[in-house]
Amino acid sequence: MSKIKLAVLGSGTGSNFVSIAEAIEKGELDAEITIVISDVEDALILERAAKFGINAKYISGAPFKTKIEGDAEDKYIEEIIKSGADYIVLAGFMRIIKPKLLKAFKNRILNIHPSLLPAFPGVHSWEQALEYGAKFAGCTVHFVDEGTDTGPIILQKAVPILDDDTAKSLHARIQVQEHIAFPEAIRLIAEDKLKFLTERRIIIKYE
Amino acid sequence: MSKIKLAVLGSGTGSNFVSIAEAIEKGELDAEITIVISDVEDALILERAAKFGINAKYISGAPFKTKIEGDAEDKYIEEIIKSGADYIVLAGFMRIIKPKLLKAFKNRILNIHPSLLPAFPGVHSWEQALEYGAKFAGCTVHFVDEGTDTGPIILQKAVPILDDDTAKSLHARIQVQEHIAFPEAIRLIAEDKLKFLTERRIIIKYE
Repeated sequence: MSKIKLAVLGSGTGSNFVSIAEAIEKGELDAEITIVISDVEDALILERAAKFGINAKYISGAPFKTKIEGDAEDKYIEEIIKSGADYIVLAGFMRIIKPKLLKAFKNRILNIHPSLLPAFPGVHSWEQALEYGAKFAGCTVHFVDEGTDTGPIILQKAVPILDDDTAKSLHARIQVQEHIAFPEAIRLIAEDKLKFLTERRIIIKYE
Repeated sequence: MSKIKLAVLGSGTGSNFVSIAEAIEKGELDAEITIVISDVEDALILERAAKFGINAKYISGAPFKTKIEGDAEDKYIEEIIKSGADYIVLAGFMRIIKPKLLKAFKNRILNIHPSLLPAFPGVHSWEQALEYGAKFAGCTVHFVDEGTDTGPIILQKAVPILDDDTAKSLHARIQVQEHIAFPEAIRLIAEDKLKFLTERRIIIKYE
């Protein structure tokens, strides 16, 4: 079985990228990151990728602000395929993935979301959870489909919401779990351990 | 501080009623159940209430099937107030509570829902969770407001969804937590431990 190859897309600091790159370096995850692409020219994720010796590239998403479509989409697809990646990992990528890219990598695009989906989709989930008065938050690694945070779930981690939590303290607690969950989910794929029981329900295969 | 008095409304087997009545009998919960009312004449909850020596009463919800409104609502309010209850506990009561009853017991009606709300409101939440492919389920004790399963949350218990779960096995795992959560939430009220930090966010007071 050959090593799986990942293209990582991110718009920000790339802390989830780092958790994956470190898991690979430590030998905990048998995978290779072939390219890191950002739609933000000075995003920290590009700098961090370069430090790991990984090909890091800025590709503008213009003229759109919240999605990858048209010429930009074509460039993303071209660079990702050229890098040899089998899977796309969204690590804080702040644009919606449109059908052309989704189709090119069907059930091979992963995202992590800072809530126990289907609760609190969209942005600032931890703030939504606090305002709602929920007692549990968490994170979800899922395949990306046409919807917003609606794709089939690979794994989830739950964290309690404490009485004295602020948005900041809760977000930090969730991020600790994100950095465990994302490499773990990718490892399940790398080891061919996932089984779709239905179109939505994914379980772990044991030989 | 005088003991809080509860009116319990249920349509089914009353397993949550039993968990509360037993917590009272064991001295774990300083409360009194003043009346048990069912909208189903032969509901097991009435039989069980009688065995605990509690006033058990059938009050029809006709002509409506899914709500308590009009004459039936007036009868419910009359019987609940006559019993001396301060709080209403919905223990598997399969009708929507309408504004008149809500207003008479504002923020004094409790419900338990078999999911980690706001995920999976409505009926058969455990089946919804399985079909969605979620990895966590649970239960939520909340105050009842005008919405369906939208009121402020008192507490939640999380349970994992396992790869070999069926609707039955998952429901059973959730019910174990329900029978812990409901008496626990009522005890927080009985001991005056709840504090509304906002209209939605409830925390526990410590002296």
